[in-house]
Amino acid sequence: MEMGIVVGRLTATRKDENLVGSKLLITQPIAIDGSYLSHPIVTVDTVGAGVGEKVIFVKGSMASRSTHNKEAPIDAAIVGIIDSIDT
Amino acid sequence: MEMGIVVGRLTATRKDENLVGSKLLITQPIAIDGSYLSHPIVTVDTVGAGVGEKVIFVKGSMASRSTHNKEAPIDAAIVGIIDSIDT
Amino acid sequence: MEMGIVVGRLTATRKDENLVGSKLLITQPIAIDGSYLSHPIVTVDTVGAGVGEKVIFVKGSMASRSTHNKEAPIDAAIVGIIDSIDT
Amino acid sequence: MEMGIVVGRLTATRKDENLVGSKLLITQPIAIDGSYLSHPIVTVDTVGAGVGEKVIFVKGSMASRSTHNKEAPIDAAIVGIIDSIDT
Amino acid sequence: MEMGIVVGRLTATRKDENLVGSKLLITQPIAIDGSYLSHPIVTVDTVGAGVGEKVIFVKGSMASRSTHNKEAPIDAAIVGIIDSIDT
Repeated sequence: MEMGIVVGRLTATRKDENLVGSKLLITQPIAIDGSYLSHPIVTVDTVGAGVGEKVIFVKGSMASRSTHNKEAPIDAAIVGIIDSIDT
Repeated sequence: MEMGIVVGRLTATRKDENLVGSKLLITQPIAIDGSYLSHPIVTVDTVGAGVGEKVIFVKGSMASRSTHNKEAPIDAAIVGIIDSIDT
Repeated sequence: MEMGIVVGRLTATRKDENLVGSKLLITQPIAIDGSYLSHPIVTVDTVGAGVGEKVIFVKGSMASRSTHNKEAPIDAAIVGIIDSIDT
Repeated sequence: MEMGIVVGRLTATRKDENLVGSKLLITQPIAIDGSYLSHPIVTVDTVGAGVGEKVIFVKGSMASRSTHNKEAPIDAAIVGIIDSIDT
Repeated sequence: MEMGIVVGRLTATRKDENLVGSKLLITQPIAIDGSYLSHPIVTVDTVGAGVGEKVIFVKGSMASRSTHNKEAPIDAAIVGIIDSIDT
């Protein structure tokens, strides 16, 4: 999984029927110190995350395991809110 | 998923039989502000997208969930049209 | 999927038994204008492509859907010959 | 798989129910000589690894094979502790 | 698939039980001319490859198809020895 920070919300009225009801958040990947890495992606929120929160997200086919609709065509999902990192 | 803008259409007469009937669009990945990222890929359109529209697309094996033909060998599909992004 | 141009053919006598009979082509990823991107990969040809032809290829587990042998351990396959791109 | 060194531990109270009980370690990918590559990721530990140990980790859907909970939405897991590398 | 050259062998006593018996080789990705690309990865050998040999390797979930143990959590496997490349 990767660490990220939620930076926005995306609205798409016209979409795959199995995405209806999914909350789509823009997540910016981050390093341990919070600095930005690469570029933002569109993630499905499954844990009630909000803008500004640091999260962990899963990419690829495993992301679909976290959603209620097991037929949803998703490749990225937020699966946890980061409390702390001990290094 | 990633954000992108549809920049063209690809025609391929000779192709895998499970791709027959698929609309193949060239999608350029973009950042939140619309700037171009990386390079264009070939996506299967499943929502009626057109050139110039901003879309979200899925990569990898999950892309195949969005198509009618569940045997199609595809690894990228447009699954939504972006209305707006709130940051 | 990605666009590419076939630049060579690879021979491997000693290989996984489920790859026996597969035609292995070296494919160079390209941009819309034909310029080279990244580096060449080894693809299984499923549509009768030849050196110099522009193709579309699939990566990851979906590539295996395009081959006759469904047990073949492949992660990249040519699934179409590009006729034209309209931008 | 890739080589890495465990550099920290991540705590997430609010998370996918199938991640409850998983030990989440921050793993920094490394080259053969131990130099850092790319950026740290969040991995599920399945072999009792600790901070400072050099490990091998699996990415993508295969990572989920290493965990007891086969429904866990994970895309990276530590599957071995490196003893030595002979070059 | 990608081309690579075997540059070493990795030993890991403590590992996932489904990796026991797997021969783990360090493979350096290469271009057609043999120059090094990116960084070395850990691959499971399934064709009897040795250090110094040029090979083709598969990444992702398809890699697991090449091993006897179908439950092994692997994401990279050597599936062929390169004889020649005709360009």
